[in-house]
Amino acid sequence: VSRFRISYLLACGEGEDPAAKARAIALEQTVELPVACVSAEVRRAVVGSTEAVEPVAGGRYRAVIAYPEATVGSDLLPYVNLLFGNASLKAGIRIADVEVPPGVREQAGGPRFGIAGLRALCGVEGRPLLCAAVKPVGLSARQLAEVCHAFAAGGIDIVKDDHGLADQRSAPFAERVARCQEAVARANAETGARALYAPHLFGGGSALRQQAELARQVGCVAGLVCPLLVGLDAVRELAAQSGLALLAHPALAGAYFQPDHGIAPEVLLGKLFRLAGADGVIYPNVGGRFTFTRAVCDAINVELRRPAEGLRPAFPVPAGGIDAARVPYWIEQYGPDTIFLLGASLYAQRDLRGAAARLAGAVAGAGVGR
Amino acid sequence: VSRFRISYLLACGEGEDPAAKARAIALEQTVELPVACVSAEVRRAVVGSTEAVEPVAGGRYRAVIAYPEATVGSDLLPYVNLLFGNASLKAGIRIADVEVPPGVREQAGGPRFGIAGLRALCGVEGRPLLCAAVKPVGLSARQLAEVCHAFAAGGIDIVKDDHGLADQRSAPFAERVARCQEAVARANAETGARALYAPHLFGGGSALRQQAELARQVGCVAGLVCPLLVGLDAVRELAAQSGLALLAHPALAGAYFQPDHGIAPEVLLGKLFRLAGADGVIYPNVGGRFTFTRAVCDAINVELRRPAEGLRPAFPVPAGGIDAARVPYWIEQYGPDTIFLLGASLYAQRDLRGAAARLAGAVAGAGVGR
Repeated sequence: VSRFRISYLLACGEGEDPAAKARAIALEQTVELPVACVSAEVRRAVVGSTEAVEPVAGGRYRAVIAYPEATVGSDLLPYVNLLFGNASLKAGIRIADVEVPPGVREQAGGPRFGIAGLRALCGVEGRPLLCAAVKPVGLSARQLAEVCHAFAAGGIDIVKDDHGLADQRSAPFAERVARCQEAVARANAETGARALYAPHLFGGGSALRQQAELARQVGCVAGLVCPLLVGLDAVRELAAQSGLALLAHPALAGAYFQPDHGIAPEVLLGKLFRLAGADGVIYPNVGGRFTFTRAVCDAINVELRRPAEGLRPAFPVPAGGIDAARVPYWIEQYGPDTIFLLGASLYAQRDLRGAAARLAGAVAGAGVGR
Repeated sequence: VSRFRISYLLACGEGEDPAAKARAIALEQTVELPVACVSAEVRRAVVGSTEAVEPVAGGRYRAVIAYPEATVGSDLLPYVNLLFGNASLKAGIRIADVEVPPGVREQAGGPRFGIAGLRALCGVEGRPLLCAAVKPVGLSARQLAEVCHAFAAGGIDIVKDDHGLADQRSAPFAERVARCQEAVARANAETGARALYAPHLFGGGSALRQQAELARQVGCVAGLVCPLLVGLDAVRELAAQSGLALLAHPALAGAYFQPDHGIAPEVLLGKLFRLAGADGVIYPNVGGRFTFTRAVCDAINVELRRPAEGLRPAFPVPAGGIDAARVPYWIEQYGPDTIFLLGASLYAQRDLRGAAARLAGAVAGAGVGR
């Protein structure tokens, strides 16, 4: 029986035995029955087996459960369900690390572009990429296109929609995407650069494919998705079929990041988003207006770039309150295979093209080798 | 400007001002920019305005923010994103109650069957419905079909897949669904009842529609979905297009149920799952192996059944360790417009048909009027 291992951090309540808790997880996430109700044959074939339960710091326990690959088959969502489906409804269970069964990895396929592919699309080697968010919602499609043009003309590599942009009456999806793509293409014609525009694809079901097709038709080669809104498997299909390079946004992800319950950020954003096909994964950088520590950011960076059998490395995209003036510092910290996503600190400078140009100049001046 | 109101429970860290926190949410979830970067016109048109911030028990604060409907348009996912997208990545923010903008409500559409429609499908009036889970994963399609037959022949109204069943090699989706549906139809022919079989539809993107079509082709009129796995908007499309009555499973939902951060269970499972089209919503009943209190269960029941403009009421489906012997008690507590979902306590009796028949007899004997 081929198995994959899931590592848990368990926080036990009073009188709760960590070994019993691990055994309960191994049943709950597979047969969903007490062991007495399951035949020996089924038990061998699908129930997880506890390989380790050991105390770690803070009165918690590290448990490792090995699950037969046959338990989930090769589909992505049954695998995610095994990780945390029913377990989410219990307490004190944190997914600390995961192995991905080869069948799931092959079917999911991971990034279609990855770091090398996105670099090739943008025509940028040897330095980090710069990304800026187009906003705010409430502007017209024409106004948003002006923002796009200013950023692209100033030297931003990827101009992405704010994930709040959808199909609002102020800037309907089809018109907005066409105008913004045209604006970025126009800027490229002026500068000779190859900036990308990444519209937010927000629809569920068949709407997601339709939005991607519309984006392709007007010339887009990239898109922005929120995997926890549209669903991880919808992202997988989008990556496989749309031909678009995909940036993934962490909307809703914070729900999973409790210290004692949930999924470790480097697993959810680093492993699972990449597995589903994200070429770049946006996360809230330390020191901004969100709650990640530096260690969490480093762990996400490591996971996204880690060589993994059959999966292309993906770009980390730190964001959320990165100050333009601090970008050289962050380049030194995070290295060149990073996309820096900026928003407010560019808007605060009013002259968006000038702000983008100063930022691009600072990045060029940082002179990072690969 | 038409507005919808979101109520928050805010837990403030040291030195954190609740009014400032509410204002930050109103910006973060709309323009995602400091107020100084936003024109007065956009501010009026899309930024949320704080209507109340008041202290409540436990040192927390209740805040109400009114958002212009134009901020999200009429799509479901932008609305969900406004509720908790970026807010999830901060701390101490709990969505306590929500108004649904009329445009979102109309486009989402809610349950296509609802309580009355599901009753009509099953031909059952005046008593609760009984649901049993088919499991475990690892059995063959033929063995799972035998389980289906036993439950349906014993008097279960809805025989549903365990949500761990997907497309495993032990029981491939197409074969399993055909055999299980045939088994339930055969039992119906024997008993004269109209039990339903609800297969688990687990695919993302176009796979979800294909699975629903396959289920329809072999005669299914119901299905089981995990909205947080396939995506809420995919459920909406499934409800609108498949013709299947939908039971929604709370897999992953526990991530949102932190006391000080997340989405209240009655909002996520009661309002949002129903809004997306669930005709019945499964939740972990108090006293089982999960963590809900009785008050939470009551609140979910109220939300699902609440008359709401343009949305059919949906069945609460308490589950997760309901003992067969206690069902009469729970009928008294929860009333007839409830589906009781049983698993382990039936399997523990070995003779599944006998166990189902005893349960059905007890429910009939409970003699609940409507």
